[in-house]
Amino acid sequence: MITLYHCARARSFRPLWTLEELGLPYELKMLPFPPRVFAKEYLGINPLGTIPLMLDGETRMTESAAIAQYLVTKHGPTPLAVGIDEPDYGPFLNWLHFGEATLTFPQALVLRYSKLEPEERRHPQVVEDYSKFFLGRLRMIESITTTNDYICAGRFTAADISVGYALLLASRLGLASQFGPSVTAYWARLQQREGYLRAIESENRAGDALGLARRF
Amino acid sequence: MITLYHCARARSFRPLWTLEELGLPYELKMLPFPPRVFAKEYLGINPLGTIPLMLDGETRMTESAAIAQYLVTKHGPTPLAVGIDEPDYGPFLNWLHFGEATLTFPQALVLRYSKLEPEERRHPQVVEDYSKFFLGRLRMIESITTTNDYICAGRFTAADISVGYALLLASRLGLASQFGPSVTAYWARLQQREGYLRAIESENRAGDALGLARRF
Repeated sequence: MITLYHCARARSFRPLWTLEELGLPYELKMLPFPPRVFAKEYLGINPLGTIPLMLDGETRMTESAAIAQYLVTKHGPTPLAVGIDEPDYGPFLNWLHFGEATLTFPQALVLRYSKLEPEERRHPQVVEDYSKFFLGRLRMIESITTTNDYICAGRFTAADISVGYALLLASRLGLASQFGPSVTAYWARLQQREGYLRAIESENRAGDALGLARRF
Repeated sequence: MITLYHCARARSFRPLWTLEELGLPYELKMLPFPPRVFAKEYLGINPLGTIPLMLDGETRMTESAAIAQYLVTKHGPTPLAVGIDEPDYGPFLNWLHFGEATLTFPQALVLRYSKLEPEERRHPQVVEDYSKFFLGRLRMIESITTTNDYICAGRFTAADISVGYALLLASRLGLASQFGPSVTAYWARLQQREGYLRAIESENRAGDALGLARRF
């Protein structure tokens, strides 16, 4: 049985979404955010206190896009993985990484220095620098989705989950109004997927059971 | 023939190191940093102006850790890849991502707000926040390398290249004096590899030919 430690709308939504797309059984351990403050016992399980943590037998992982890749390759076969012999194998790996390293980290800065830090530690210039950084990098996605429904391989894959979570975070941060028309349509398409909707339902159900505020 | 666009000591050192470890033929296109300012013609090839860009036939990739994974899986077989049936397949993917998303991006902030931005746009607090962030996350690597020569699978893999580049950047930023003893020894081990040394030589040779300042 796979165990996933998760906070509402955190990066751990990537593995949660992947699990629902694959229809795999899992146990969802929902935590208040940030767990290092509100669920100190979690530090005994993951000393960094970061989310996600996924346990699958002896396998232990903390990087959300890597977990998505792991699940679709290890628990396949599934069209959500792009095989090494397919022409889009390279782009598949590229967008898996791009979704997190290039599209999500800059937004974590926007979140931190516009909302999470106390007033005196906020930095409007850093928020602006990394909003621009994110929107600039997003042009690659705008360009691809103008002529493609999905980011690579002509079908929905784990790479769309990686990029899709970055779009979810952008919506939360109020950046979605600056999406181009193709990214807007792509993001709407992703949100209609049954796996996406089941993942939200799963998060809400687990959060409600703990009395946590809903974020969806 | 593989083509790699590279700047001295930039993230593109990951694919360069991987190419040298594998002994693959490649063409190195060396650019001054940042290319979007000093090599504007590069924007015609990669509109974002980011480094790296790797071309391999029809495959086009821009994420350095993803390119490392691509090269060792597509151009193998090689022990630098961890196979899906090995016990450390999950950790292999995890550390590939961790090296970039968790260990390198925070350092890019340190670099930007301590050195690259003009004086009036520098932010000592952000530099301190993300130096701490990096050193905190590095505890995971300290813990693993206390009992292991390499980050996973009991051997040198592409995951060590991903993490190793983060250690190289940290050295450049003056953060290496704060490495723990195991990370210090691990980083020394990585720098002794022939593939690493050949990558440095290759970078210096290509840079010299263009009259660029050596960074190694």
